[in-house]
Amino acid sequence: MNSFGRMFRVSIFGESHGIQIGVVVDGCPAGIAFCEEDLTEDFARRRAGGRGTTPRVEPDLPRIVSGVFRGKTTGAPLTIVFENTNIQSDDYDNLWHHPRPGHADYTAQQKYNGYNDPRGGGHFSGRITLGIVAAGVLAKKFIAPATVCATLIEAGGSTDISGAVEKAIQSKDSIGGLIECCCSSLPVGLGEPFFDSVEAVIAHMIFAIPATRGIEFGSGFRAAAMKGSEHNDRIIDNRGTTATNFAAGINGGITNGNDIVFRVPIKPTSSIGIAQETYNFDHNDVETLLIEGRHDVCIALRIPVVIECGTAIALADLMLREMQRNTLSTQEK
Amino acid sequence: MNSFGRMFRVSIFGESHGIQIGVVVDGCPAGIAFCEEDLTEDFARRRAGGRGTTPRVEPDLPRIVSGVFRGKTTGAPLTIVFENTNIQSDDYDNLWHHPRPGHADYTAQQKYNGYNDPRGGGHFSGRITLGIVAAGVLAKKFIAPATVCATLIEAGGSTDISGAVEKAIQSKDSIGGLIECCCSSLPVGLGEPFFDSVEAVIAHMIFAIPATRGIEFGSGFRAAAMKGSEHNDRIIDNRGTTATNFAAGINGGITNGNDIVFRVPIKPTSSIGIAQETYNFDHNDVETLLIEGRHDVCIALRIPVVIECGTAIALADLMLREMQRNTLSTQEK
Amino acid sequence: MNSFGRMFRVSIFGESHGIQIGVVVDGCPAGIAFCEEDLTEDFARRRAGGRGTTPRVEPDLPRIVSGVFRGKTTGAPLTIVFENTNIQSDDYDNLWHHPRPGHADYTAQQKYNGYNDPRGGGHFSGRITLGIVAAGVLAKKFIAPATVCATLIEAGGSTDISGAVEKAIQSKDSIGGLIECCCSSLPVGLGEPFFDSVEAVIAHMIFAIPATRGIEFGSGFRAAAMKGSEHNDRIIDNRGTTATNFAAGINGGITNGNDIVFRVPIKPTSSIGIAQETYNFDHNDVETLLIEGRHDVCIALRIPVVIECGTAIALADLMLREMQRNTLSTQEK
Amino acid sequence: MNSFGRMFRVSIFGESHGIQIGVVVDGCPAGIAFCEEDLTEDFARRRAGGRGTTPRVEPDLPRIVSGVFRGKTTGAPLTIVFENTNIQSDDYDNLWHHPRPGHADYTAQQKYNGYNDPRGGGHFSGRITLGIVAAGVLAKKFIAPATVCATLIEAGGSTDISGAVEKAIQSKDSIGGLIECCCSSLPVGLGEPFFDSVEAVIAHMIFAIPATRGIEFGSGFRAAAMKGSEHNDRIIDNRGTTATNFAAGINGGITNGNDIVFRVPIKPTSSIGIAQETYNFDHNDVETLLIEGRHDVCIALRIPVVIECGTAIALADLMLREMQRNTLSTQEK
Repeated sequence: MNSFGRMFRVSIFGESHGIQIGVVVDGCPAGIAFCEEDLTEDFARRRAGGRGTTPRVEPDLPRIVSGVFRGKTTGAPLTIVFENTNIQSDDYDNLWHHPRPGHADYTAQQKYNGYNDPRGGGHFSGRITLGIVAAGVLAKKFIAPATVCATLIEAGGSTDISGAVEKAIQSKDSIGGLIECCCSSLPVGLGEPFFDSVEAVIAHMIFAIPATRGIEFGSGFRAAAMKGSEHNDRIIDNRGTTATNFAAGINGGITNGNDIVFRVPIKPTSSIGIAQETYNFDHNDVETLLIEGRHDVCIALRIPVVIECGTAIALADLMLREMQRNTLSTQEK
Repeated sequence: MNSFGRMFRVSIFGESHGIQIGVVVDGCPAGIAFCEEDLTEDFARRRAGGRGTTPRVEPDLPRIVSGVFRGKTTGAPLTIVFENTNIQSDDYDNLWHHPRPGHADYTAQQKYNGYNDPRGGGHFSGRITLGIVAAGVLAKKFIAPATVCATLIEAGGSTDISGAVEKAIQSKDSIGGLIECCCSSLPVGLGEPFFDSVEAVIAHMIFAIPATRGIEFGSGFRAAAMKGSEHNDRIIDNRGTTATNFAAGINGGITNGNDIVFRVPIKPTSSIGIAQETYNFDHNDVETLLIEGRHDVCIALRIPVVIECGTAIALADLMLREMQRNTLSTQEK
Repeated sequence: MNSFGRMFRVSIFGESHGIQIGVVVDGCPAGIAFCEEDLTEDFARRRAGGRGTTPRVEPDLPRIVSGVFRGKTTGAPLTIVFENTNIQSDDYDNLWHHPRPGHADYTAQQKYNGYNDPRGGGHFSGRITLGIVAAGVLAKKFIAPATVCATLIEAGGSTDISGAVEKAIQSKDSIGGLIECCCSSLPVGLGEPFFDSVEAVIAHMIFAIPATRGIEFGSGFRAAAMKGSEHNDRIIDNRGTTATNFAAGINGGITNGNDIVFRVPIKPTSSIGIAQETYNFDHNDVETLLIEGRHDVCIALRIPVVIECGTAIALADLMLREMQRNTLSTQEK
Repeated sequence: MNSFGRMFRVSIFGESHGIQIGVVVDGCPAGIAFCEEDLTEDFARRRAGGRGTTPRVEPDLPRIVSGVFRGKTTGAPLTIVFENTNIQSDDYDNLWHHPRPGHADYTAQQKYNGYNDPRGGGHFSGRITLGIVAAGVLAKKFIAPATVCATLIEAGGSTDISGAVEKAIQSKDSIGGLIECCCSSLPVGLGEPFFDSVEAVIAHMIFAIPATRGIEFGSGFRAAAMKGSEHNDRIIDNRGTTATNFAAGINGGITNGNDIVFRVPIKPTSSIGIAQETYNFDHNDVETLLIEGRHDVCIALRIPVVIECGTAIALADLMLREMQRNTLSTQEK
């Protein structure tokens, strides 16, 4: 199902070449200042246009059509829609017969018995993540003074990211990247012991974002080779600050007040300018496929803001669930 | 909240030193053969007792108290309970004043305003995962002929696992490990495009299991340094088989019929036999803490079966959601 | 939260005088023929315009903006939006100081700390039920050959409905009504024993519709005065047909294949042409309030189609949950 | 699914003649005083034993097996179990061939393909509502100072309830009854505009209780024959008190601070001492069925406390969802 969250509930809809895409946020508290201009900065971070990103640019003009009145959230469902202006009527039958490697062409067709909209990836298009960014901007306002910040720290295995991108452009190939995300100034006590641990809720959101291949918190994969005497984070003051932060600010699934830090590898863009051999279901044979047009060479350049906003949504949901505690602790039962 | 799943819904309850722990499975289809003996093998895999695991062993005798009749599931909620026989009344006040590094002592106390049961970690105890294993054995029966298999492939950074464990025992320290899990014979079409992608649902479950620090699917973190021309899995036959499997059997969040393969790093056990300096909230100072008793040296030895069973639960839920499709496709609307 | 359903999930959004209202259906199976014209008939039933309904008519032009491709549902979230064309910028401050009796003016303001959009009732407007009708038309297609039919059987306590309406118009007052709904050709086995009994799921939906004051299934309130020997429905053939249908086609929360029949009382429209005395929070006194404009005299005239469509949504959700059973029963576990 | 609630989540399990029945409450705040003795009074209200109730009495001894420590809730899942001591191994094959009118024998068998436990109604037994009462006692503590009180106001159509019961005993028949429930001292602002209106959430719970045939809030079915000028509740003071309470304390789905009042008709017990003609699926013919043993003559005598406790659970859930608002309104966003 295309929704996320229990209290701060986000639903996304739309197709790459459909009429409109959008997002509904149900459960956002009333009284948060929010307008279209708030989206400008993060939309710019996500948008195509730079070196290594696709030259086909949508204007991404958001319309807040419900849930905001006189510049403040009302508490009713908040909806943001985007018209698709760059729609073309390409021939798409080929996608069904000769599915592109790395894309969802084959799985979508099988899952929906061939009824899915295949144009530009349809509902599987990365364009649909625009709604995650829009909802995330709102979530970031709500969780303040807590903050989330995601950045690309490597591309194609190198920290010289521009250089790696340039090389990939020359070879008509694509490259992956590594994103790091840090959440600060968090309250202690978010999350649940098992099924809704903070890691579980954040990881659920991260794998909703196309092209993510993994996630590691704090020590991450290095933990497998560590000793307990190294890995245990010693508490050093009465606010729970730890000397190290291998736990990534989480013990037993619950935030401990230190930063949540995690890293996410992004796969290389599936569409490349090089011919690929893959199965043609119409001809019952492996055939060469060349994907026309120009594409993102390194989609990882555009994903940090999506991860940042998705994480903010996850934190907003966890915070709303936990806020009753503050109210309760002042009562006598 | 301590539940997982939309259609195959698993809830776990209990505390390490409480009266009873258990699991309720709501939504399990009727007619699956299931009895206490079915749990023997996987409980043995999870149980302490081997070299490097704690010598304190609970018998783990399961009682199926509802949802099974004449040896078959009935379709009503299926409940399995375990009496806690090894309960001691240790003095636990110390845990509150001088929380153990790496444990949830501090976060639990803060989250629950000091009302949590601290004995043996209370509800945060790894013992509660017994319910995940019990529900997972049932899930494995349901998803057949699909299979899930998790194994420990490294401990303390080495593939000589026994050697690594022996060394850790000698040094009174603990070590982490790396687990690999493979799901085979899966139908095409499980999962949803974004928020309930197969990766999201599995990762959510994996991070419900204590001590997991990350997850990577297929190419995983290596994807960040790969090129599209390497990473794209070419389809080579009309059943969707791919030449490589960097996608781990998932495209656009949907299973493509190839194996789902993922790896999970496990942190070293937090309780170690070496003194640690950490904050004492009663004395307002950093003090030395020595954790008494004997503990698991490498908890990663016991976790593969928990990961295997948790994954089976996730797959059972995804399968139940998707089964209507098979019914629908034979109808005319 | 403004969503309904576990598998066929409906979310509605918008405000009476906002920019756009709409509905998102998540989980609708692929392959159902669906277009804007399908909505014409039920929208006409719901629309104002007849004697006793408000003369202020919106065109209610639906745009399916996602989830339909080449005239068939795709399986992705299906979104239908409506532009609000009849927006006026009335002075609405009065609603806050002098809340209208029977309306949500006071509760909305209290719940949302004064941030709600008060114009025309804002998100509480009956206009938002347009989304329920739109989703219900789709649901009716999905549940076929099962059918749902709701009709007004009484207004103002009389079966001469036109006469009762005419009388109310003359007295500038409003009147209530009684609606009966019948669901036929249902499969046996929908619903769950307790919390998701068929009655629970349908009643949940019915009370999502503004102005409903109760619901009774089959024998309903008469059951309180009946004897078991009268009330028990005797089965008379091998398809489970019963001689009477006091159970309304439901035993133990589960459909038995006979018709589901229920009745719903609708309160008289809250806005009336007569002056009312009620509290003015600005003046701290009870004062006379006269609601300007013309209104529905008998809102019950327009609600049958909303109840019919809401019920179809509830049945669609129950059916999708149950469809796995048909698949399972043909397997050997 | 056998769970209720979003934040205060209640799951019930067990069968009439199974090993153990019980309830899990997930999401109960920490720090509420709770012990087995708290259940005594409401269990006595629910228990059989009085004139007109079954003479077969279970001791109903509750064991709180998790979630309580040192007499206070811990915040972890709270589980209460009951051993079934009165289990007999009756021959039950007859129930499958010759289903009892008014019972779930036929629907359960069809839904679960014959795998359900039929003994004493299995999971459909009214005995399973013991868990609702247990969770409700806890909920009543949580929602205090708000209160819920349900009483039987009519049986067999008469307010002379003992007389009506006596008469039914003589005729070996059973009778229905009418229950009224009143919730007082509620905060303003609980509930949501549409799908989770207070009426929807309460009605959902009420229809989870076996034998309920309807529900009406405030004016209820009388509203269908009323005029707006009568029905509108005029506000008379600055706390929102209304002169009348036809709205039952709810406007637009949201509590307005006045009492929530509703009535629920209960059907006559299905098991009666009189022979009934109904279909025998084994013999393919209508045959006479006489149900052996002694039964409740008026199950409505025992249901008020179940309705009271169920309603408290619904209110606890609505309150927990809303508590964040109090926290938020003191913040600046």
